[in-house]
Amino acid sequence: MHDVIERYIASWNQTDPQLRRKLIDEVWAPDASYIDPLAEAHGRDAIDATVAAVQAQFPGFVFTLLDSVDTHHRQARFTWGLRPAGAPADAEPVAVGFDVAVADSDGRLTSVLGFLDKVPG
Amino acid sequence: MHDVIERYIASWNQTDPQLRRKLIDEVWAPDASYIDPLAEAHGRDAIDATVAAVQAQFPGFVFTLLDSVDTHHRQARFTWGLRPAGAPADAEPVAVGFDVAVADSDGRLTSVLGFLDKVPG
Repeated sequence: MHDVIERYIASWNQTDPQLRRKLIDEVWAPDASYIDPLAEAHGRDAIDATVAAVQAQFPGFVFTLLDSVDTHHRQARFTWGLRPAGAPADAEPVAVGFDVAVADSDGRLTSVLGFLDKVPG
Repeated sequence: MHDVIERYIASWNQTDPQLRRKLIDEVWAPDASYIDPLAEAHGRDAIDATVAAVQAQFPGFVFTLLDSVDTHHRQARFTWGLRPAGAPADAEPVAVGFDVAVADSDGRLTSVLGFLDKVPG
């Protein structure tokens, strides 16, 4: 699970459309869903469009894991932060969220259930 | 979602087998799954057996929500604690866990993804 979560975060930071879609195809199962308080996306096309929209809203920002990934069976929980690219690793993130991810037997994500702990003020 | 989460917690505290099963049938969709670090249960029979096993392991203990339920769309996250029945509300729980629950359009749970933050030492 740790590897797929790292690549999941990387897909949020990959702004080249072709490379981003390649990562999304690797990370997500075809019929996967992503649901957070602000977005609901079903299938890779919709997930890719959601990631692209967030990137357009926060140009020059990067997502990072804020602490370790807690995983068992095929599920994981983790907290992420959004900061300007190049900001110090201890800089206060402008947004903080929390995801639970579920993977299939191939290790691809079937569902990410997202929550927000801090939104840009 | 808040109501089904309250009844979900109540089902963990209902030790009368028939009343517990009635609650479980109301709270869970037929093909639901419950997965935490120590248990994986698919369907109401297996979920009921899992709850019964935990009750047998911790007789006289009760589950309570430790803070508010954060919910959007049909998903919720919440933290629970396990304490001896009658313990003060501010007593340190012997176990603390965190669940993300997903409901269907009828408001019944289809999936609970559980994690543990503190296990009995």
